[in-house]
Amino acid sequence: MARSDNRAPDQLREIRFQPDIAPHATGSVLVSFGKTQVICAATIQDEVPRWMKVQGVPGGWLTAEYSMLPYSTLDRKDRDISKGKLDGRSQEIQRLIGRSLRAAVDLEKLGPRTLWIDCDVLQADGGTRTASITGACVAASMAFNRLLQKGVLTQQPLKKKVAAISVGIFRNQALLDLCYEEDRDAEVDCNLVMTEDGQFVEIQGSGEESTFSEAQLNAMLGLGKKGIMEICKLQEEAIRAVEPKSPAPPASGAMSSLADAFKKL
Amino acid sequence: MARSDNRAPDQLREIRFQPDIAPHATGSVLVSFGKTQVICAATIQDEVPRWMKVQGVPGGWLTAEYSMLPYSTLDRKDRDISKGKLDGRSQEIQRLIGRSLRAAVDLEKLGPRTLWIDCDVLQADGGTRTASITGACVAASMAFNRLLQKGVLTQQPLKKKVAAISVGIFRNQALLDLCYEEDRDAEVDCNLVMTEDGQFVEIQGSGEESTFSEAQLNAMLGLGKKGIMEICKLQEEAIRAVEPKSPAPPASGAMSSLADAFKKL
Amino acid sequence: MARSDNRAPDQLREIRFQPDIAPHATGSVLVSFGKTQVICAATIQDEVPRWMKVQGVPGGWLTAEYSMLPYSTLDRKDRDISKGKLDGRSQEIQRLIGRSLRAAVDLEKLGPRTLWIDCDVLQADGGTRTASITGACVAASMAFNRLLQKGVLTQQPLKKKVAAISVGIFRNQALLDLCYEEDRDAEVDCNLVMTEDGQFVEIQGSGEESTFSEAQLNAMLGLGKKGIMEICKLQEEAIRAVEPKSPAPPASGAMSSLADAFKKL
Amino acid sequence: MARSDNRAPDQLREIRFQPDIAPHATGSVLVSFGKTQVICAATIQDEVPRWMKVQGVPGGWLTAEYSMLPYSTLDRKDRDISKGKLDGRSQEIQRLIGRSLRAAVDLEKLGPRTLWIDCDVLQADGGTRTASITGACVAASMAFNRLLQKGVLTQQPLKKKVAAISVGIFRNQALLDLCYEEDRDAEVDCNLVMTEDGQFVEIQGSGEESTFSEAQLNAMLGLGKKGIMEICKLQEEAIRAVEPKSPAPPASGAMSSLADAFKKL
Amino acid sequence: MARSDNRAPDQLREIRFQPDIAPHATGSVLVSFGKTQVICAATIQDEVPRWMKVQGVPGGWLTAEYSMLPYSTLDRKDRDISKGKLDGRSQEIQRLIGRSLRAAVDLEKLGPRTLWIDCDVLQADGGTRTASITGACVAASMAFNRLLQKGVLTQQPLKKKVAAISVGIFRNQALLDLCYEEDRDAEVDCNLVMTEDGQFVEIQGSGEESTFSEAQLNAMLGLGKKGIMEICKLQEEAIRAVEPKSPAPPASGAMSSLADAFKKL
Amino acid sequence: MARSDNRAPDQLREIRFQPDIAPHATGSVLVSFGKTQVICAATIQDEVPRWMKVQGVPGGWLTAEYSMLPYSTLDRKDRDISKGKLDGRSQEIQRLIGRSLRAAVDLEKLGPRTLWIDCDVLQADGGTRTASITGACVAASMAFNRLLQKGVLTQQPLKKKVAAISVGIFRNQALLDLCYEEDRDAEVDCNLVMTEDGQFVEIQGSGEESTFSEAQLNAMLGLGKKGIMEICKLQEEAIRAVEPKSPAPPASGAMSSLADAFKKL
Repeated sequence: MARSDNRAPDQLREIRFQPDIAPHATGSVLVSFGKTQVICAATIQDEVPRWMKVQGVPGGWLTAEYSMLPYSTLDRKDRDISKGKLDGRSQEIQRLIGRSLRAAVDLEKLGPRTLWIDCDVLQADGGTRTASITGACVAASMAFNRLLQKGVLTQQPLKKKVAAISVGIFRNQALLDLCYEEDRDAEVDCNLVMTEDGQFVEIQGSGEESTFSEAQLNAMLGLGKKGIMEICKLQEEAIRAVEPKSPAPPASGAMSSLADAFKKL
Repeated sequence: MARSDNRAPDQLREIRFQPDIAPHATGSVLVSFGKTQVICAATIQDEVPRWMKVQGVPGGWLTAEYSMLPYSTLDRKDRDISKGKLDGRSQEIQRLIGRSLRAAVDLEKLGPRTLWIDCDVLQADGGTRTASITGACVAASMAFNRLLQKGVLTQQPLKKKVAAISVGIFRNQALLDLCYEEDRDAEVDCNLVMTEDGQFVEIQGSGEESTFSEAQLNAMLGLGKKGIMEICKLQEEAIRAVEPKSPAPPASGAMSSLADAFKKL
Repeated sequence: MARSDNRAPDQLREIRFQPDIAPHATGSVLVSFGKTQVICAATIQDEVPRWMKVQGVPGGWLTAEYSMLPYSTLDRKDRDISKGKLDGRSQEIQRLIGRSLRAAVDLEKLGPRTLWIDCDVLQADGGTRTASITGACVAASMAFNRLLQKGVLTQQPLKKKVAAISVGIFRNQALLDLCYEEDRDAEVDCNLVMTEDGQFVEIQGSGEESTFSEAQLNAMLGLGKKGIMEICKLQEEAIRAVEPKSPAPPASGAMSSLADAFKKL
Repeated sequence: MARSDNRAPDQLREIRFQPDIAPHATGSVLVSFGKTQVICAATIQDEVPRWMKVQGVPGGWLTAEYSMLPYSTLDRKDRDISKGKLDGRSQEIQRLIGRSLRAAVDLEKLGPRTLWIDCDVLQADGGTRTASITGACVAASMAFNRLLQKGVLTQQPLKKKVAAISVGIFRNQALLDLCYEEDRDAEVDCNLVMTEDGQFVEIQGSGEESTFSEAQLNAMLGLGKKGIMEICKLQEEAIRAVEPKSPAPPASGAMSSLADAFKKL
Repeated sequence: MARSDNRAPDQLREIRFQPDIAPHATGSVLVSFGKTQVICAATIQDEVPRWMKVQGVPGGWLTAEYSMLPYSTLDRKDRDISKGKLDGRSQEIQRLIGRSLRAAVDLEKLGPRTLWIDCDVLQADGGTRTASITGACVAASMAFNRLLQKGVLTQQPLKKKVAAISVGIFRNQALLDLCYEEDRDAEVDCNLVMTEDGQFVEIQGSGEESTFSEAQLNAMLGLGKKGIMEICKLQEEAIRAVEPKSPAPPASGAMSSLADAFKKL
Repeated sequence: MARSDNRAPDQLREIRFQPDIAPHATGSVLVSFGKTQVICAATIQDEVPRWMKVQGVPGGWLTAEYSMLPYSTLDRKDRDISKGKLDGRSQEIQRLIGRSLRAAVDLEKLGPRTLWIDCDVLQADGGTRTASITGACVAASMAFNRLLQKGVLTQQPLKKKVAAISVGIFRNQALLDLCYEEDRDAEVDCNLVMTEDGQFVEIQGSGEESTFSEAQLNAMLGLGKKGIMEICKLQEEAIRAVEPKSPAPPASGAMSSLADAFKKL
């Protein structure tokens, strides 16, 4: 059975990281998994949440917010604010992004600061939560490197890179990195979050209206592990690419915005 | 290493089902996993959600709501309504309960009806979401049996029983059915939802501030599978126990309330 | 005219108090007025509301919350949170419960603490607000006795017991303790809150779509007073029953939960 | 003991009705009980609430809203909207106003219409809820008379006039029509709603931090009854005063606004 | 072309200021522009907003709230609170009122206080926002004069008077001070806020479904300027009228309420 | 006095339009005014709002939503949803965008459809509302052209192009197109919306804590008119550039996404 874009079952979509998409953030990236595109921004704030102060917890905090822009879907999606509350799915995803990143970051090394991770989906074609986690790690890494370079931080808070990918069972076959149509029709859907050294951070497998066997689970885990290792290499390249040439963008943004990048071409 | 209540690592807490705790529901049960107690009620409503009517989806719907009563925790927990919105964790859990039950129920056989699953935690000591799913399946089964007996339904909507259990890695050892203290200090926390024939419905594994290996995952899956098989037997007994002797309680509740049960002793 | 359950016009339904239904609360009781059942929990918190601190008011505070569980009614009742706000009737009732209990408690003797009264209706068959007040007084008394025994309090804050009952005019006859059907069809509905020494705390009489005469008012007051005196005796017995044998349940709840109670039978 | 304004214990404050304060309403009045002033407006709408249509209830509906303008109190009161929800006291009062008026109105004679009663407190000096009910009855009566005159209604929906007054126990003495300072310091506070023929509609007596005896209750009821009979006469005069000379004000309000009244002097 | 009330194109409606409509406010006025009537109240509060304290901004603050009473419009307007949020138009208007008044007030001279401006529309017939600004200036001036007289303030915070008027293009002709019907059908609608010395504070011109030329803009500005100069004289008279004879009304309001004013006639 | 970026007082920042930034929208553009960048998307929906159906208004509707992404500002801006309501400034801006576009569009030619205009600020450096209107017109035009090409529409709904620019008085000099720092420190701030034929759509001038003269107003209007004429030419070029080569992007987005554009370089 051929996939709609002719990929092999164990083949990732093309994954790219466009840095500094949002120059006012400390670090940011536009991550694409095929046609899925997410703006990931990491912004440092010199404050910790009230509960940390009250409880006297040392170190910093990392929190994530996730949202789909209204024009990211095939049919326009109403903004959460028009209903007055965050929808359940978005809330679940932003909690997952936060947990995943916190597993990769040493919060004590952040000092009394909060790192805000914002993920806004520009175009949705399946796998927005996995692209978000993957891009957020790159944005956070860029932010940390700049804060180290500026002397704001003295120790690297990123313990190891974290990445995520979706796997699924579609017409009884295990597939890696499902696009929207595959995801919609899959019998089983599983999201994996892993670190670059092959450890699990989160497994969320669900057979929505269906069930799955241990053999199917194992097939998915195998595909996922392979995919994550490939993604971690791409993350490494993306982070390295900006490292030497990019000091933190000046607050009033002298260059490097998305439109500037276009202009220079 | 001994567990706080001297259980073996692969040993469940005592699990009990007290039927008809809420006589106005179609089916209900007070489920206990040790000191964790959850009121699970299944209530039938002769209507489907608006989106089903608009889209012309055939059959019925099943939706779940989960809440912790304010006195269920060691420190009183504020009601959601006092903050004006459902907290993220509750929302995530009720979505999980809903998906798990829908995997076990043939919604077409429900006809144009909604089955409401309500899970209210009376006492929390770890594993409230797994107790909720397990109890909800019993309550739903009791409700279906009564609706079949009354002729409202003509076919059994429950395809197979579904149950859930928590497993985790605590001080480097895999444990089954974590109590609150174990759960709070565990390195890895994993919730499994499975059907009585050993298929997976949901896997949610998380190493909150940490990571876990494939070997640890496999150890947890092994324990979980064993535990679920034991729980399914207890569900079966509980369902069978009410079957012959209990027609649907009269709407104005002639007997069988919790307090009546006490009184008869 | 016979009542649906053959009671005399001046006869209460059977009233029972099942203690320690919610072991994590400081004191708790499942109160039943016939088929009406309410979980009443009293939880102490070592803090007073912000307005008391700001205004420098001495002593403690007592506040009440009331809610109907969704499966407590014949047709499932939507949770308040699904509409984002507390419904007007619930708000009115919880304000009444709070005022009634505060009339019975010496807040200065509480010290700088808040006593939370939570009333959750498990089954509704008329009189839920009067059962709530009656049960809340028992739960608060149990809580105070335990705090005195532990030395947290040094003086008994409960000045005198408070209880409540509904009375009404149904088909032109004064009735005591109306069940749901009587309440629904009554011409006049009146709720009385009184102390054990026969003083009034609250009178709320309403002839919804109708009016009532002074003679009818007096007939209702007479019945109500008689009923309240009987209820106060039952409260006394319930409080005394737990006194000698029950130290505050250990926070991690070694025994005495509802399910344990069943198990011991 | 002298009252702050030298009234006798059984003496009302001066009560006045200024008609047509809000010319766009169907009927309206500015009611004053001494310094307490409330704008009462009755507006007819050619529609019934959705629940009446769904349930097929015949006739019309009457609903009330109550609000304190922010500058009505000695310290400015925040608007409800700034907190996003109606405060509990306002909600309780508007439910009371609605019930009281519905007891006086034959909803079937309204036809498929809703009568909105709006009560906005311009100045608060005790007794705002009783002034609201009293003024609302006058506004509703004026509205009905105009709708009868215009032929919109064919039968008078007002069955009998309804009025309300506060009574209380202050320094052990029963007082009629308490001003703010008396109300604040009273041991017992009781609001009575009665019809012009001396029947009770609502009794709400509360000894907030205290209790009261049957003798005190009877003293309060006696004063209240006397006060209400006097108020009903004033209502009658106010309604009669506008009757002959005032057709419904033209929608675009050619005259009779408050400022016009001043101007003519 | 004749205007519906026979005014010349450059003629204002009759503008009146009835002082002390809300005696509990520091200063208040009922302003009328023809049939449009707005209660404007200025209330001083001995506190500044939290953001000023946090940022250490010296001086005081002035903030405005605007609302239409439900019976102010021809068809009853639902209260904002019934939808749980302020409507967009009201929010826009109250921001405009606040900016306009802040341009006229020296906030440093207020000291660490907040002046609340409340504008509640009693009757709407076009121009409610301009009447609100105009009346708010009079109310604020009365409040300042009283606070100076009482020694609370030592310097006059009002720099110069501010007033507002609507102008528009209706059937191709520039008109001053549009009533509701003119406003509804106008091709262009423009609100001007100016100070008594002829400087602009705000211009908000909009050709809703249409556009307008520079010549039309100039015609409107000419009319508006003329109108504002006339209004400023009326403001001056109104402020002067209360000056000698009115100390701040005693908090418990011994006189001067609206109804008292009527009574004295 | 030199401007921070050395522009002449009457010089625009560089203005660019990057088409098809959001391929799932019907038309979209990333508009930049210097460092200010806004994603503008126009999405067609085959439905009109409920109020249009109820009132039987013919034709279609156009509505706008505006939001600042949290990382668009120098200090991270909290999302509206975290406070549960749209902030006042955003609401005001989205109402302005909607009115401006409706002035340029013949809603009858849209047929029974809604055009959603979404403006999300990616980077804020002053003038986000004027960039939003300017970009929204280009996005809408692209959307209309595609719908005409596909035969969904038969008549061009865009009557004439609409654009917007800010002007202000900064250190007593009139400036065109203010950047953030100029805007923050300007004495007067004015936003102009005009059509390509030099007619006004909206003028919003405000001297926040200050006032301005007629001469200053005229200087600003002169600059603004010049700027808008230049912008309309750039809009024309941008629209023409996509016209021949771009059919509506396939729903599943085969090309032309932002990242693809980068890749092709």
